[in-house]
This record gives sequence, structure tokens and C-alpha cells, in this order.
Amino acid sequence: MKKFINDPSCLVAELLEGFALAHPDKVRLVGPSLVVRARKKPKDRVALVTLGGSGHEPALSGFVGEGLLDFSVPGEIFAAPGPPRVLEALRMAARDAGILLVVLNHAGDVMTADIALEMAKKEGIQVLQILTHEDISSGSRQDPTDRRGLVGALPVIKAAGAAAEEGRSLQECHAVAERMERNMATLAVAVSSATHPATGQPISQLAADEMVVGMGQHGESGMGSRKMASADGTADIMLPLLLEDLQVRKGEEVLVMLNGVGSTTLMELYIVLRRVRQILDSRGIRLARTLVGEFLTVQEMGGFQMCLARMDPELLRLWDAPCRSPALQV
Amino acid sequence: MKKFINDPSCLVAELLEGFALAHPDKVRLVGPSLVVRARKKPKDRVALVTLGGSGHEPALSGFVGEGLLDFSVPGEIFAAPGPPRVLEALRMAARDAGILLVVLNHAGDVMTADIALEMAKKEGIQVLQILTHEDISSGSRQDPTDRRGLVGALPVIKAAGAAAEEGRSLQECHAVAERMERNMATLAVAVSSATHPATGQPISQLAADEMVVGMGQHGESGMGSRKMASADGTADIMLPLLLEDLQVRKGEEVLVMLNGVGSTTLMELYIVLRRVRQILDSRGIRLARTLVGEFLTVQEMGGFQMCLARMDPELLRLWDAPCRSPALQV
Repeated sequence: MKKFINDPSCLVAELLEGFALAHPDKVRLVGPSLVVRARKKPKDRVALVTLGGSGHEPALSGFVGEGLLDFSVPGEIFAAPGPPRVLEALRMAARDAGILLVVLNHAGDVMTADIALEMAKKEGIQVLQILTHEDISSGSRQDPTDRRGLVGALPVIKAAGAAAEEGRSLQECHAVAERMERNMATLAVAVSSATHPATGQPISQLAADEMVVGMGQHGESGMGSRKMASADGTADIMLPLLLEDLQVRKGEEVLVMLNGVGSTTLMELYIVLRRVRQILDSRGIRLARTLVGEFLTVQEMGGFQMCLARMDPELLRLWDAPCRSPALQV
Repeated sequence: MKKFINDPSCLVAELLEGFALAHPDKVRLVGPSLVVRARKKPKDRVALVTLGGSGHEPALSGFVGEGLLDFSVPGEIFAAPGPPRVLEALRMAARDAGILLVVLNHAGDVMTADIALEMAKKEGIQVLQILTHEDISSGSRQDPTDRRGLVGALPVIKAAGAAAEEGRSLQECHAVAERMERNMATLAVAVSSATHPATGQPISQLAADEMVVGMGQHGESGMGSRKMASADGTADIMLPLLLEDLQVRKGEEVLVMLNGVGSTTLMELYIVLRRVRQILDSRGIRLARTLVGEFLTVQEMGGFQMCLARMDPELLRLWDAPCRSPALQV
């Protein structure tokens, strides 16, 4: 394995130490592994908390900052942090305005969050949960239980974070998060595997000429493999599935995020975006906003996630609101 | 080759079209391939222009924006754009305040810039050139002719761009750029090759257990290969060479940039930064600023560039000045 790491058992602690060193004006660590804003949000504003495995940098701790998250509880590589540390974060975040807990739909994260949430409620902490599950490859819209949470967590955090900053109530922030979540659909494509940095083992196998549409961010199987396609060919496969899932109509406005998951270049993502715009134009759908880059990665995996979101005037306004975090600044 | 591209002969045109689509509030294209700011800088301010091959996204066009570049002239993949298009950019940028032309030291770029500069001067356009050559692996500080220009171009653009925004004269902007350039040293390490997106061929060869310290951003040979080292071991090799080259003394302040060149993760860069801080602490040198991420890439190459810069109060102030571009926002 050709990774610049040291003892795998210290990996997350070391990466968080470096992360805090790199962004001292934006974040700091509480204890070895709880990430908080450098400048606290006033207590009369709703706090946003999230949790999730490490190894996906900059997600999720890279979105701690003004207009976004207040606390992030990172786990070990690709693993949930466990309820006690999430409870600790909820206690620190506790306030009359309440807490919105953002959870990406993965079994370990959901179990961790549910237990921590129960314990927090028993202590009188006011907290609502929003579960993101926008991966259209792993379940239907009618029964989204198995739909994984991918990079769509970011628009949810952005919209709810902006609402919280404006002083909206917990119920209102939750409603915004829910509206954003229900109006999103994400699909991933993988062309090469990631190596697990702690074990040195590949997390999936792909033949030299194949790509997998719908692969999850830990190598979970998707819609099956097919022959590697061009940029245009790949967009032609993915975008219609997303538009179909969301039932986007002519005249509507959408946000498109292209999230590189590791070794796929910005160059490629820009070429894909060009085709996305052509397809949307041909259907009379307006590409209102874009976000292209690496936001939720899977080590050095090759591929990207395409996230489509139907926007309305309020969601657009919240999307455009200022934010300042290590990995996103508006 | 597993890249999301279409016809290789249209690669740069398509990537620039997508780039402009992704950042409509920051940049626009003039003709098919000249990148300019969406909002022009007042004519009484010095303009900054650069040129360079494509395939290194977000560099260099990703740094067009307020507080940074005014014009970028991208070439084909890994190739200089040629004098006529640079001359066209210089004509568009022409103003009484003058133009600072930032050139990274690579043979094709230098030749292109020199010819365009001569032609522009004959037309009465006021322009000064700053050549960046901070790669300590490819020449000595005393005779830097062969020193390549790596990611250090970014601090030079940042400092000179901030000075230009403040209304400083061309001579003053050039002096700032020169002071930044002379106080920088960069070293790259490569662990896996990039694939040339137009030819599908690897640009270098590395054995499964080796890394190359000093590899250039087109696969140029460096200080020879050695056995793959840990994060700490790699920092222990690279940072002392940079400190030695710059003769950084106890009590001085430095900026450290860690620039991932492709498939090396943020996780790894943060772990390296942690060690950088330990080494600097042990020598009584202050880590005043950091920048960690992907700024000048080489497709999906594995490895990173470590750029060290000795800072003074004015350079720190210019580094901290606001800027707003697709790839850097302060």
C-alpha cells in the first residue's frame, strides 16, 4: 500500500491533529477526536451535529464552520464513532434552541445515532434527527430504508445550517433539511477501487474495462458492472436515472453536484458537467447551481457521485448564504 | 485508460466549457480558451496574467479571480499555449498600470512567454515577467536556471495579486512577487504515475515499493527512487532539505503548503502536516500559515508537493488578504 501514513492504529488521531493544525481559524479539537467550530455559534441558534466514519476527507469534519456544522464526531476508518462520543457531542451542543442531528444512512451510523439520541432525550436534551438517504441505486423512493446517504448530506447541512444561522427554530430547520433531502437524488459510478488504509486491502474489485454504476462509498455493490463509458456516455446513463427518480419537470431549477471520490480529476468532472448541462437544456430544466470538487471521498477510489437536487427560491437562498468551513466557503 | 473523457482532441475545450459552467460568478471564457474574471478589475490596478499546460486542474485557471489572477491562458495537456494566444491575453489586459506576467519555469512556457513579451513590448504594452523556479531537486539556488516552477506559483500569485488589488505599482507588485519567489522552496514526492489523458500512456514508471523524491510535474526524474516511507519518514526526508535550501533560522516564520497531486488523500496530507509541525517546533521555527489540498495536480498521480516559504509581516498580510477564485477563497 502506497499511502503516507504511520501506525494504522493511530491514523485517525494523527489525521485529526493535522486537520486542526491546517485550519486553526475555523475548527478546533475537543479531546482527541471531537471537531468543533473555532468560534462558537450563539446559544440562541440551533446547533448542527453529525457523525460518521473517517477516511472520507474532507467529509464530514471539513464542513464544521460558520453556516454549516457546529460539531462533527468522526469514527475510525469507515466506521461509526459509537454512541458515547456522540452523546458527549450532544451534551456539549445542548441548548434551548435545540440540536439537529444529521445522519447519513449507513447501518452503523444509524444505530449509533439512535442510541445516542435516546440517551440524550432522557437527559432532557432537545434534538431532532434528519436521516439522509438519496442513493437511488440501493432502494426505491417509496421505500428508502436501504437508500444510502452519499454526498447529498452536504446540501442538507448547507440549507439547515443557513436556516439555523438565521435564527430559525429547530422545527423549521428540520423542515428545511427534510425538504432538501426529499428533493435530492444521488448516483455514484466507480472505475477503480480504494485501498483500506488500516488493512492495506482493496475494498472492491473492478476489471480493467469496467465501471460500476451505483457503487456505495464503502465498495457496496450497485446496479452491476458495465463497460467503461466516455464522459458523455456516463452522464447519459446517470442523469436520466436521477431525473426520473426525482420526476423533475420542464421549467424546474436544479442544483447539480459532481463529487470526485478520489483519483478522478477535476478535469473529468468539468467534462461531465458540460454534458449534464446539455442534457438539462434539451429537457428545458435550468441548471441553477453547481458544485464540482472533492467533498466526500473514498480514499483513492476512481469515480464520482452525481447529486441532483430540485431547488425552490428558499432552498436557493439558503444554498447561497455565506458559509466558512475548511472544505466549503461561500 | 479509465478516465471520463470524450474525443481526446476536444479535451481542453470541453474541460474549459465545464469549468466556466461550474463557476459563472467567478470566471468566464473569452473565445474558446482564454479565462478571465467574471468581474473585471479596475483599469488603474496592475493586471496579473499567467499561462501553462492543462491537465493540472485546478491550476492555473482555477486561480483567476478577485485578489489573484486576471487572465489565464491554458495550453493543451501538459503543453504551453503558444505565443499568439498569450499576446492576445496581454493585449486584452493592457493598461497604464501595467501587467505582471507569471511564468512557471518549464521550457515551453518560458519560450512562449518570452516571445509574447517581446511582441507585446513592441506594441507598447507595459509588462514585467516573474519566473517561478522553486523546485530544489532540479538545480541549485545559486544557479536556478533548471529549477522547475511547481505549486509555489500560487503564493507568488496570491502575494502579487493582493498587492495589485491594493493599487500598488507594477514595480512594487513585481518586487513583492520576487521576494515571495526567492523565499520559497518546493520538493515533490511521487508514489504512482499519472496517465496522459490524450495518449493513454503512463508518464513515468514506479516499482510497487518505491517512491521518487523530486519528481517533476510531468514525470521528470528527481533525486532518484528510494523505498516507500511512512508519512513521518517522508516528512523527515523532505522538510530538512527545504529548510537547508532556504537557510531558515530559529525564530523565523514559515508558510507550509502541502499540495496533493492527484490520488494522494487529504487524510495523508494532514498526517504529513502533523509531522511538519513537530519538526518545525523542534527547530524553533513558527508554522505561521498552512495550505493543504489539491491546487496543482498531475492527473491521478500519487504523491504531493511540499512548499516552504519564509514569511515576513508584509507577505503574511498579503497572504491573508481576501481573494475569491474557483480554487482558492480567503
